Amino acid sequence: MKNLQTMIKEQGQVFPGNVLKVDSFLNHQIDPELIKAIALDFAAYFNRSSITKIVTIEASGIAPALMLASHWGIPMLFAKKSQPSTLKNDHVYHSPVYSYTKQTETRISIDKAYLTSQDRILIIDDFLAQGQAVLGLVDIAKQAGAQVAGVGICIEKSFQAGRNRLEAAGLDVYSICRIAALDQGKISFLEEDKFCGQ
Amino acid sequence: MKNLQTMIKEQGQVFPGNVLKVDSFLNHQIDPELIKAIALDFAAYFNRSSITKIVTIEASGIAPALMLASHWGIPMLFAKKSQPSTLKNDHVYHSPVYSYTKQTETRISIDKAYLTSQDRILIIDDFLAQGQAVLGLVDIAKQAGAQVAGVGICIEKSFQAGRNRLEAAGLDVYSICRIAALDQGKISFLEEDKFCGQ
Repeated sequence: MKNLQTMIKEQGQVFPGNVLKVDSFLNHQIDPELIKAIALDFAAYFNRSSITKIVTIEASGIAPALMLASHWGIPMLFAKKSQPSTLKNDHVYHSPVYSYTKQTETRISIDKAYLTSQDRILIIDDFLAQGQAVLGLVDIAKQAGAQVAGVGICIEKSFQAGRNRLEAAGLDVYSICRIAALDQGKISFLEEDKFCGQ
Repeated sequence: MKNLQTMIKEQGQVFPGNVLKVDSFLNHQIDPELIKAIALDFAAYFNRSSITKIVTIEASGIAPALMLASHWGIPMLFAKKSQPSTLKNDHVYHSPVYSYTKQTETRISIDKAYLTSQDRILIIDDFLAQGQAVLGLVDIAKQAGAQVAGVGICIEKSFQAGRNRLEAAGLDVYSICRIAALDQGKISFLEEDKFCGQ
């Protein structure tokens, strides 16, 4: 089975501003074998039985979220960053998400029809840094009266505030790779070689 | 196996301007079983042997493209609609894509590292209407010197110019569902119940 940490070590590139480029396998070009391994790792940690839906944000969260939804046989739902012409304002839940990397605010939205108080969702995303994207999804879940079973992250920048913010909100956060630092182009991990199935 | 045409008949909604809303199963909420069936249908039509990569555009093309890439065990690559901070202008191929629905032009881009003259790509997308998105990807493939093995589409609006434009460019276009008209809220298909595996 492919190992996310090994792929990051071999192909990840560090850019100024604590940016980790992993677009050769995770969020531009995608290695489907790695995405499957990631989905199985999430499936091993979270308890499928109570989860009705996987929720993520376009675009980079879609691949791991879909693969897990496919493995579990439940729907996947991705929040949109721009509102389609077919969705009117009063038909969506929305929340503002600030990106520290891009220094812009995006309004994410989900059709009210697809998230209800009957849902217990698992949130999946490719990166966790400041936690803004996940908190936006949690805000939308709250508006819908849906429960959040947990948060599954591919790559966590553990030197940033995201995990603390999510844990302070009472969320169970599971990250496959936790990065301790991105100093001078070097990537160091909190734990070595932790990856389900290895 | 799930049937895309049945899902469109049961859940598709027609909006003014020839807009077909299928976001309960294809491009907002996603039914992974249907996406698998779609991927198998593409796999049955196209000859996998010569194809090196599946290429699509974020965000709605990602699900079917990933599922086919996973089935075939080859990489998937999605063009970005906004350029990440880690990508400099001279490191990307780009092309303008005009959306008739949104009446806006978007610049799509692909990192030069991931598309070369050694590649023979299959383009996958959720909708074919005027063909602008696919022609943007074909333009990028041409810049890279890559060959285009074909174009696989989930839902084709056959009453619009897309297919003619792509065929005029010498492309092999395969669409799972071909819609003849969206008149007065009614959806009619060119062919009834054509879906691999049914």
